[in-house]
Amino acid sequence: MSLNIPSSSLPRVVIVGGGFAGLSIVKHLKKIPCQVILIDKNNYHIFQPLLYQVATGGLEVESIAFPLRRFVRKFKNVMFRMAEVLELKTDDNLLLTNIGAIKYDYLIIATGSEANFFGNAGIAKHAMVMKSIPQTEDLRTVILQNLEKAAIAVTAEERIACLNFVIAGGGPTGVEMAGALNEMKKHIFIKDYPELDLGQMTITLIEAADRLLSVMSDNASRKAQQFLEKSGVKVLLNVKLLDYDGNTVTLDKVSPIIAKTLIWTAGVKGTVPSGILKDSISRGNRIKVNSFNQMEGLQNVFAIGDVASLADEKNPNGLPMVAQVAIQEGKQLAENIYRSLNKKQMLPFSYKDKGSMAIISRNKAVADLHRFRFHGMFAWLIWTFVHLMSIVGFRNRLVVFVDWVWNYISYDRALRNIIRPYKEKQE
Amino acid sequence: MSLNIPSSSLPRVVIVGGGFAGLSIVKHLKKIPCQVILIDKNNYHIFQPLLYQVATGGLEVESIAFPLRRFVRKFKNVMFRMAEVLELKTDDNLLLTNIGAIKYDYLIIATGSEANFFGNAGIAKHAMVMKSIPQTEDLRTVILQNLEKAAIAVTAEERIACLNFVIAGGGPTGVEMAGALNEMKKHIFIKDYPELDLGQMTITLIEAADRLLSVMSDNASRKAQQFLEKSGVKVLLNVKLLDYDGNTVTLDKVSPIIAKTLIWTAGVKGTVPSGILKDSISRGNRIKVNSFNQMEGLQNVFAIGDVASLADEKNPNGLPMVAQVAIQEGKQLAENIYRSLNKKQMLPFSYKDKGSMAIISRNKAVADLHRFRFHGMFAWLIWTFVHLMSIVGFRNRLVVFVDWVWNYISYDRALRNIIRPYKEKQE
Repeated sequence: MSLNIPSSSLPRVVIVGGGFAGLSIVKHLKKIPCQVILIDKNNYHIFQPLLYQVATGGLEVESIAFPLRRFVRKFKNVMFRMAEVLELKTDDNLLLTNIGAIKYDYLIIATGSEANFFGNAGIAKHAMVMKSIPQTEDLRTVILQNLEKAAIAVTAEERIACLNFVIAGGGPTGVEMAGALNEMKKHIFIKDYPELDLGQMTITLIEAADRLLSVMSDNASRKAQQFLEKSGVKVLLNVKLLDYDGNTVTLDKVSPIIAKTLIWTAGVKGTVPSGILKDSISRGNRIKVNSFNQMEGLQNVFAIGDVASLADEKNPNGLPMVAQVAIQEGKQLAENIYRSLNKKQMLPFSYKDKGSMAIISRNKAVADLHRFRFHGMFAWLIWTFVHLMSIVGFRNRLVVFVDWVWNYISYDRALRNIIRPYKEKQE
Repeated sequence: MSLNIPSSSLPRVVIVGGGFAGLSIVKHLKKIPCQVILIDKNNYHIFQPLLYQVATGGLEVESIAFPLRRFVRKFKNVMFRMAEVLELKTDDNLLLTNIGAIKYDYLIIATGSEANFFGNAGIAKHAMVMKSIPQTEDLRTVILQNLEKAAIAVTAEERIACLNFVIAGGGPTGVEMAGALNEMKKHIFIKDYPELDLGQMTITLIEAADRLLSVMSDNASRKAQQFLEKSGVKVLLNVKLLDYDGNTVTLDKVSPIIAKTLIWTAGVKGTVPSGILKDSISRGNRIKVNSFNQMEGLQNVFAIGDVASLADEKNPNGLPMVAQVAIQEGKQLAENIYRSLNKKQMLPFSYKDKGSMAIISRNKAVADLHRFRFHGMFAWLIWTFVHLMSIVGFRNRLVVFVDWVWNYISYDRALRNIIRPYKEKQE
């Protein structure tokens, strides 16, 4: 097999990963004379911030996925190849993939992140995560299967275990997931399962720190917690999750919770390709980079997005693993490649934090935008608008819009089909 | 486990299968004093006539699936249970399922149909079919994977095998699939794969009879063939497909075709639950029923839809396996159950053929409606309107409408993400 790439006299930029970071740099390399090869193990981009809505039946899987071949069509200097990276040989400027080797002049690693279980085998085996589309489909399936199992359970213990849902991690994903699952309970399950007493269904959100949304303002944390608790979600702060065996969530200093479902949003780590020296990897399995997103000691290898750890004054352990950082780094690096091609000094990256938001339920969200802090309906409108406008592709934006209007008017989350029954991983 | 069904003094009607037949009888039992239990192994209904559009990236999977629990909400006398039938014990009026046993007063078998390979193990193993949603997703994945494989193929033989697609069966599904795949080639693949010469991609439609769409008029057959051939599909009539090993399609009296993909639409058979005597099964594995859709010798067991073989003058081997028959039989049987409950004589079923249609490409379809025969743009409009109006659920209709308008305007089929890579079945 071969990557089947036409030869070119232009310098070659190889980008690994079609997430926010990868697409950002592709866009900004548009007018720069270079041959760009975008590689991803999947043939699509995911709009990750809405995965939790797929998991809770609010959006179709493919309204937040976009074909990368469709994306690169717009750019004459870009080619896409669906390939998995096997190894990086920086001494030879060579990237080995499952479909052949490729030489690069510049290499950009934008491989993103994955769930981090911090070495806990029980959690790794039994918890559900939402970093990829198949994982998210599986989570939705597990939620629906557990309702079905509850409906036919013979003992009360069995039924209650199926109806207890525990979410680990009080960041935006955990908070949004708790809110959305609670809306499923209130608006869908209560009507779909007349044979069940939905009063028995519980949703518990567990956070090890002393507040939810620790990246946001105290006010946002407090409001988010208030919104969740008022709607019936149980919030446990200052509680460490110790272990999970598929049935019992073991907590530090608090009684265990019997639950068939644990949704893990409490840790992420960089997805680093093979061939990167251990010395180059920092906390959270991220690649250490300087302020040009350059790997230490390598002139032409860069990392951007979640997989890159670029420290600044405010973030000594690296910038946060969020879309905004990825997008801004991609833009800056495109500029720096242009400068490098023209023998100019590269410019250091500086992160402009535009703020954070989290949605809790209909009409309820929290938003910190610079000095402005909103909560409730207005924050919800901002959240909805910003997310809609950020989705890649007009058709996807249209379908998400239709689904959101539909969900809002009908109180429905239509996508609750068990397409591929989920069986737990075997060892 | 148990079916967890509240006791009732009303007679109990158990319906197995939530396809067109099952939903039709549920609807028409609405005002009849009985307790209705709808059982299906999936928790959703599929709008089967549009599966081929899912396979070719034109529609999202779940725009043609509808949650059965959502469907039964409208009917106060109906309960849904997700269960698989294990065995039927007609002597005891008992249905055994994987979640427990259930007594019935009336049992309606509406389990539909599945692919029939007529005992050919090679075809069964290697061919792709479109009877369920996972099968259809797999088919879409295989098509996309083969394009990706072609893009990195080292030898011309390998590349051409990936680019050759053979469709077996010239009925509506085969014709529509050939047309849709050809549109993917012309409007999508040619732009998505600049590294490939799409002139090498071939689509061959194979039919054993002497014309396509043999259920339709000669005129429709001729026009469909003309539309297909003009757009570049190769049509082989009077050709029998003998075998397939995953690489070579062996044909009778014609040279074999090297192709990595064989799409099988050339046979269906009834899906009969265990416990039905062999004597009760006719040609095509369908349950023999009398004109009341009643199984021979059983007063209270009925079969409707694809799984039932009800012969009439025009159809001595049983009515065709199409949605119209299923829907009409469901309606008639609801009426007959009402009559039976009131000790009245049941009325024989008589099929009103409303005609057939098949779509070939944008603006091109054929339609036989009673004495009226259309082809081209007008038939295409009728097809589009009738299918849109038949989809279950307002939201699904809306999403399909949005997708169709989008596809029409943009010449796009947006859904071409390889979500779950397909690996061939192992023995």
